[in-house]
Amino acid sequence: MTLRIGIIGTGAIGTDHARRINRVLSGAEVTAVTDVNRDNAEACVAGVAPGAQILGSAEEVIAASDAVLVCSWGAAHEAQVLAAIAAGKPCFCEKPLATEAYGARRIVEAEEAMGRRLVQVGFMRRYDRGYVALKETVRTRLGPPLMIHAAHRNPTVPGRYRTPMAIHDTLIHEIDVLRWLLDDEYVSAQVIFPRATRHTHAGLRDPQIVLLETAKGVRIDVEIFVNCRYGYDIQCEVVGEEGTARLPEPTAIPTRLGAVFGQPILMDWKDRFIDSYDVELQDFLKAAAQGTAAGPSAWDGYVAAITADVCAQAQERPGAILPVTLPARPALYA
Amino acid sequence: MTLRIGIIGTGAIGTDHARRINRVLSGAEVTAVTDVNRDNAEACVAGVAPGAQILGSAEEVIAASDAVLVCSWGAAHEAQVLAAIAAGKPCFCEKPLATEAYGARRIVEAEEAMGRRLVQVGFMRRYDRGYVALKETVRTRLGPPLMIHAAHRNPTVPGRYRTPMAIHDTLIHEIDVLRWLLDDEYVSAQVIFPRATRHTHAGLRDPQIVLLETAKGVRIDVEIFVNCRYGYDIQCEVVGEEGTARLPEPTAIPTRLGAVFGQPILMDWKDRFIDSYDVELQDFLKAAAQGTAAGPSAWDGYVAAITADVCAQAQERPGAILPVTLPARPALYA
Amino acid sequence: MTLRIGIIGTGAIGTDHARRINRVLSGAEVTAVTDVNRDNAEACVAGVAPGAQILGSAEEVIAASDAVLVCSWGAAHEAQVLAAIAAGKPCFCEKPLATEAYGARRIVEAEEAMGRRLVQVGFMRRYDRGYVALKETVRTRLGPPLMIHAAHRNPTVPGRYRTPMAIHDTLIHEIDVLRWLLDDEYVSAQVIFPRATRHTHAGLRDPQIVLLETAKGVRIDVEIFVNCRYGYDIQCEVVGEEGTARLPEPTAIPTRLGAVFGQPILMDWKDRFIDSYDVELQDFLKAAAQGTAAGPSAWDGYVAAITADVCAQAQERPGAILPVTLPARPALYA
Amino acid sequence: MTLRIGIIGTGAIGTDHARRINRVLSGAEVTAVTDVNRDNAEACVAGVAPGAQILGSAEEVIAASDAVLVCSWGAAHEAQVLAAIAAGKPCFCEKPLATEAYGARRIVEAEEAMGRRLVQVGFMRRYDRGYVALKETVRTRLGPPLMIHAAHRNPTVPGRYRTPMAIHDTLIHEIDVLRWLLDDEYVSAQVIFPRATRHTHAGLRDPQIVLLETAKGVRIDVEIFVNCRYGYDIQCEVVGEEGTARLPEPTAIPTRLGAVFGQPILMDWKDRFIDSYDVELQDFLKAAAQGTAAGPSAWDGYVAAITADVCAQAQERPGAILPVTLPARPALYA
Repeated sequence: MTLRIGIIGTGAIGTDHARRINRVLSGAEVTAVTDVNRDNAEACVAGVAPGAQILGSAEEVIAASDAVLVCSWGAAHEAQVLAAIAAGKPCFCEKPLATEAYGARRIVEAEEAMGRRLVQVGFMRRYDRGYVALKETVRTRLGPPLMIHAAHRNPTVPGRYRTPMAIHDTLIHEIDVLRWLLDDEYVSAQVIFPRATRHTHAGLRDPQIVLLETAKGVRIDVEIFVNCRYGYDIQCEVVGEEGTARLPEPTAIPTRLGAVFGQPILMDWKDRFIDSYDVELQDFLKAAAQGTAAGPSAWDGYVAAITADVCAQAQERPGAILPVTLPARPALYA
Repeated sequence: MTLRIGIIGTGAIGTDHARRINRVLSGAEVTAVTDVNRDNAEACVAGVAPGAQILGSAEEVIAASDAVLVCSWGAAHEAQVLAAIAAGKPCFCEKPLATEAYGARRIVEAEEAMGRRLVQVGFMRRYDRGYVALKETVRTRLGPPLMIHAAHRNPTVPGRYRTPMAIHDTLIHEIDVLRWLLDDEYVSAQVIFPRATRHTHAGLRDPQIVLLETAKGVRIDVEIFVNCRYGYDIQCEVVGEEGTARLPEPTAIPTRLGAVFGQPILMDWKDRFIDSYDVELQDFLKAAAQGTAAGPSAWDGYVAAITADVCAQAQERPGAILPVTLPARPALYA
Repeated sequence: MTLRIGIIGTGAIGTDHARRINRVLSGAEVTAVTDVNRDNAEACVAGVAPGAQILGSAEEVIAASDAVLVCSWGAAHEAQVLAAIAAGKPCFCEKPLATEAYGARRIVEAEEAMGRRLVQVGFMRRYDRGYVALKETVRTRLGPPLMIHAAHRNPTVPGRYRTPMAIHDTLIHEIDVLRWLLDDEYVSAQVIFPRATRHTHAGLRDPQIVLLETAKGVRIDVEIFVNCRYGYDIQCEVVGEEGTARLPEPTAIPTRLGAVFGQPILMDWKDRFIDSYDVELQDFLKAAAQGTAAGPSAWDGYVAAITADVCAQAQERPGAILPVTLPARPALYA
Repeated sequence: MTLRIGIIGTGAIGTDHARRINRVLSGAEVTAVTDVNRDNAEACVAGVAPGAQILGSAEEVIAASDAVLVCSWGAAHEAQVLAAIAAGKPCFCEKPLATEAYGARRIVEAEEAMGRRLVQVGFMRRYDRGYVALKETVRTRLGPPLMIHAAHRNPTVPGRYRTPMAIHDTLIHEIDVLRWLLDDEYVSAQVIFPRATRHTHAGLRDPQIVLLETAKGVRIDVEIFVNCRYGYDIQCEVVGEEGTARLPEPTAIPTRLGAVFGQPILMDWKDRFIDSYDVELQDFLKAAAQGTAAGPSAWDGYVAAITADVCAQAQERPGAILPVTLPARPALYA
């Protein structure tokens, strides 16, 4: 009854998922891996997946497994996910689902053609305890939401991080989680550039503010500040007709030391949603055992991609309000 | 050496200032009052200003006093302040300095012609301990400010409160205090209307978001939500190059009761900055004893009026970014 | 390689552990269960342990399993743990290890005779993220600890809960976790009875304050208040030479609603340390796979029992300071 | 109608009160001062009391004033207060009212003999906004109080500060404010000495814990830690039948900087209750204008002295529970 899991791409995240499946979660075992760099695959097997065979291609891994994890580099995702769908195998795909919106569209169409969900996209924030509790609070106590004030701050980014990555790599998480939180869709986007921090570099306008509007009229402002210095900090305040609710701070020890009453802020993004990786993968394993997928869908990945593309265009025309136009939602994702 | 203070307009705020001067603050006494409604004046004298004579006009009060407080209704401010300037008497004027920006301009010109400051405008937030500490923290620890996220929430407003009043009566405080906080000037304004709360009424779009841009490139978003239900709540977060700082919550008793760990939120705006009224008036008395004025100037009142006018125009054209154009700052206000 | 787990006692906690092992954790499966009430055992198997056989006795379960969980009622623990030790099987025992200190002593002696650790006691707080982080903060940032101020509050208890249960059922957790936190041993105990709450009942003095002293001189005050009404609330503040650190509040959504800025407090103790059950059992499974046990030991259970006995005697003599005398720590538990 | 105030003792606190009366508060003026060191008196007059005459003795100051402030060194208080009472002049006396309890008793008797209150003792915490709000919350929302957990922490003390000063100079504030908060009297005291901090010095056991019991059965634990390093920090949590309430933290700016989410802690005790000095003196002036005194009374000073003496004896017998025995409360202080 143990589910055989194949992992395509055994870099940091793929290996970490292998560890998670073999040592933390219940009901599955990593039985096949592949990586363009065979050293990576060997290290993964030696470290956390002793029972897995190393195969030469994604296709072989798909064939040898009950379900697969696509953890390769972004440009390879689309073809690998399509191959998994074609094989009828549940497939967990780390973001992005595809590097272009039309790639995501092809995945949606393939899945629709199969007639059942097979793809879960790695938007782990939906599994974060804080967001889950926030959504429940919004639903039960706040009245209709009217506004969201959010911030996505990172202490620093490397020199190769350019302005559009603030959308595609960073805002992408808010794009997904906020429409899930609100159960709503975006209809327009605007980007504003404040004075730049001296801690940024050529090629990156930092910080940015993205203003989103939803179909129900909710207005969202998201500050993206990836050289904020002080920490990795995700803020989200929902304002409803009856009151407000915030995402909780990560658990930390309050101290009184050296004239400061404070608590540590995380510096590494990897620690911020670390618990939610366990939950999202367990959710994947549970659905995969039934031959299907749950959680963030290919459609969600596609919508995120479309929205991100509009935001990236809005970066080019600061201040302009650009429409976000979505195709009709297929019945499979109703 | 006790300063003789005249009060023009003895409604709620004028009477409260009389009490403050006679019973709380040092160095001054209310010696003359006037009100269009003589009953008001008599009640003020009977209640908190036993040593004051009731006079028939603002001019008589100005003539009989060392300094005056203009607490009449807004439409009368301009003429009364001009009269005080003409008499060379220090004059504390509750907001608005004038109902139109060009009225404020006339006051600025009159004061300039006199060659010394005589007017203090009642922007009391500059005297609030929280804002003062926030300004100091921003100056010393945050690096150059890049963004401000602010909110001005009121539990409810009466039916006569219309959309533009969200600017002229409500945002006006942020307009003044944020440029003081930043030591900067506004260059553009944009207004966004989220989905309206069902708790608003005809004639009032509520909530609103005002986006301001400063000369130094700081971007400010201010949520104005005057039927927010849950409390009177003023929020201000400054994001600088090195970190963030927030306006503190008002002092309140944290309790653990009935499954809630919480503290009360004020419901009445009059309680929120109550301490700062004492401090602003003491500052006025101190300068008035020297025959001049300090604190928020006629120029500040004029700039606030110009900015408010642009914001009100921006309400008419949601989404449009309108320029804020200020005249050159006169040397008197350098 | 999957570890065969037997569960002795399939009441609420036993069944929950069965669910945990079969559905949440990795590396083990429940293969045998027993309960004095066969209906319980059948319900457990039907609900969460479909692959388990129902056996007639603890001994049979021990014989049929690689490791066992003792989740029966307290009076049966000692004999069942001794049987597991005799069989050389790793054994996780819910608290209490034994109903009397000398019962715990017999277990310690049996384990010593075996020459290796086989018993883990269910003191789950040691696995709570908050306590783990607090211990690390104390160790690295606070300097030598000098005092602990703690509170253990429960909204209400049933009528059968009597004064000594405040020690044996409630304080027992602080007794274990605080000596682990401090890496220290108790040397004296004193009990103080404040004015009783009207919400208590005959047979229960509530609240109580227990004062503990450690070998290193740390002074601990623990408020035990089991009819506190407002919530299940565990507080712990450590004061060291350089500053203080507190146990964090459980994650909760901060809201602004109805004139209150607050967050919910848990009402049910079962929710408070819910995550730590997963971690403690995973730790048990990991050691059991090696044929041994880790975590809170039989010695820890014995020391807790001795300390609890002294505290219960101190309840009989309010204000008196009674010595806590421990036998020498056997080498096995060094 | 301006009250003539005399100040006996123009050291730091006397001069600060002179400034307060002349520049901040309403209705009074410092007209006479004296000091054993004439330079002090001259500096005070030159700095903040230009209209005051320097006199040669406390008696002359009393004779020349409508009311007096006794700010001399502690050993002189008793005689000066008695002289003010004999002259029928309202008298504000900084703590201690007298260096020995029987000195305070003589003052109580003298005041009783006069038949009206003339003395206010400088227990300023009763005027602190936080304590006032805490008392109101306790009275209206908490049900009967059962316990108080308190702490009085100071970053460091000089070498001349000895063990008993932790009672007479430090705990004395809790002794007064907690019985006021509870409207209750102490009946016993116990002192416990935790492990000493290495930051203390010969002659000072630090920290200490004082356990107080009241007539209504409330149990109070007060940590006194005067070399706590990290700040001046006053904590007070009241636990009642329905829930808990805490003294608020002093207003401070929350920042996110350098991986810490924190706010500054005061380092100087003089800043902690700085606002309450204004309020207590205004209260004194108001009553003095009527020829009497309000606020903390000579009786309160006497009770604090008796209680402090018992606590100091309890320091000599660590662990022993000593009774606090108060004389009957005279009708004047009912």
